[in-house]
Amino acid sequence: MRLFITGISGFVGARLARLALERGDAVGGVCLGDRPVPGGVDFSPIDVLDRGALAAAIERFAPDAVVHLAALSHVGRSWQGMADYFRVNVLGTEAVLAAAAGVGRVVVASSAEVYGAVPAAEQPIAETREPAPASPYALTKAAAERLALAAGAVVVRSFNLLGAGQSAEFALPSFARQLAAIARGERRPVLAVGNLTARRDFLHAADGAAGYRLLAAAGVPGEIYNLASGEARSIEQMLERLMAVAGVAARVETDAARLRPVDVPLLTGDASKLRALGWAPERSADDALAELWCEARGEAPA
Amino acid sequence: MRLFITGISGFVGARLARLALERGDAVGGVCLGDRPVPGGVDFSPIDVLDRGALAAAIERFAPDAVVHLAALSHVGRSWQGMADYFRVNVLGTEAVLAAAAGVGRVVVASSAEVYGAVPAAEQPIAETREPAPASPYALTKAAAERLALAAGAVVVRSFNLLGAGQSAEFALPSFARQLAAIARGERRPVLAVGNLTARRDFLHAADGAAGYRLLAAAGVPGEIYNLASGEARSIEQMLERLMAVAGVAARVETDAARLRPVDVPLLTGDASKLRALGWAPERSADDALAELWCEARGEAPA
Repeated sequence: MRLFITGISGFVGARLARLALERGDAVGGVCLGDRPVPGGVDFSPIDVLDRGALAAAIERFAPDAVVHLAALSHVGRSWQGMADYFRVNVLGTEAVLAAAAGVGRVVVASSAEVYGAVPAAEQPIAETREPAPASPYALTKAAAERLALAAGAVVVRSFNLLGAGQSAEFALPSFARQLAAIARGERRPVLAVGNLTARRDFLHAADGAAGYRLLAAAGVPGEIYNLASGEARSIEQMLERLMAVAGVAARVETDAARLRPVDVPLLTGDASKLRALGWAPERSADDALAELWCEARGEAPA
Repeated sequence: MRLFITGISGFVGARLARLALERGDAVGGVCLGDRPVPGGVDFSPIDVLDRGALAAAIERFAPDAVVHLAALSHVGRSWQGMADYFRVNVLGTEAVLAAAAGVGRVVVASSAEVYGAVPAAEQPIAETREPAPASPYALTKAAAERLALAAGAVVVRSFNLLGAGQSAEFALPSFARQLAAIARGERRPVLAVGNLTARRDFLHAADGAAGYRLLAAAGVPGEIYNLASGEARSIEQMLERLMAVAGVAARVETDAARLRPVDVPLLTGDASKLRALGWAPERSADDALAELWCEARGEAPA
């Protein structure tokens, strides 16, 4: 397969690129060029909003499938940066759909956040549930989905992917880096945290990447697929497991700056539709935490 | 012309329906059925999200043009009701575009709010300016625009229409009702207000309705048109003129509940594109205030 990835230097993009290369795919892509790109990739430093350059890069690479991952993805920050989230996530998706109009299959990354507040009794959530976005980030993703579906793309509602390479703006990578700094004695044993009660559906990033690759090969155009484990874990549970994996204990202190105006209490997805295509998670949430810890120990403190 | 209007019982919808009837058009439409509809209209109480019923109503009426006005339109409320704003404004527009796919011309109402914070030196704003939404309301309107443009509809960016029939959730109709209650001695002479410093482009609702009708007849598919006076007035100036029109003076008190998380300081539009089609405002902002005052005196206190 010839696979073209937007946001190819990102957390999911780089992982997907490496997986595809391992499986023998030809891999091309674009990103802003501010982070390293996996070796072996036919890469151009292009903003997806630069429609002409993007269309030329896609035409030149002649992919069988495009996976559109480039996005602003931090829910908390979206409250202050609505215009940027609109530009990158909505206008960016529109630009990718236009530039990839002649490509056989286009896969657009969306998010479980589009579901909003769903009663626990109605979870895990199926794709048939109507979006009810509760943050500006979720609004932009829900809007981008409509453009994608109208253009016959495959939409992926990704739940919480976890693993090395994730920005320390997110809870668990941040905790891992704080614990590493504590282990090195560079920080007193107090962890700054946000809302720990929120329960999420964590999936190892490697399984996430495998899901995207499968959908690039076999996703049905105009259909939506959850990318989820089906299991709910609170941020607090995950933090406890991370401390166990790390062998570092710390007192927890709530940092108001890490709290969001609205936080959906529970999000778990039903991935039966993706499983029916042959996908299943192969790695555990603990594996992902071990990976995060390993990465944090090798890095400068957060 | 056979004109079909969604939200036909609303502030702009009812006004447009009456204008079109006066000009000899056949007028049909839908709305939720919770408010009276102008006489002479072929009306059905249908939610625009009921795609089958909406498509049947449009097919039966066989319009030359559809004007889509049904929306949630209160910027301040959108912060708490994002999921509803997404459903009605984005999914609702998608449903109308699908139901009206065979109609010659579809006009979709958007809002000046999509422009967001624009430096004063770059105002009045032209349609070529990229949207930079700064509220959930603006995000949903900016997203609905993309769907409309992709479907070849005409997009109208309406600035602040003003006149009788507007909900007391909005600043000036609320002030008019408060002043009427003061005039009747039912309220002490203190006016509850929000942010008075915001400057907006106020246009008489009658001129707004004329703009929509013209675009239903002559708007270019896939194009965006500002509906604006080009003049900026602060809410404070408008309130002073309203008090002068009413002959009622009152002390002003800020009510925290009327303040918004974000308020764009200035919005003025360049309507040259619409003027080139032959439109021009025929009534003044003072006319609109006089109309508001006249309506408020005849009503129960807000």
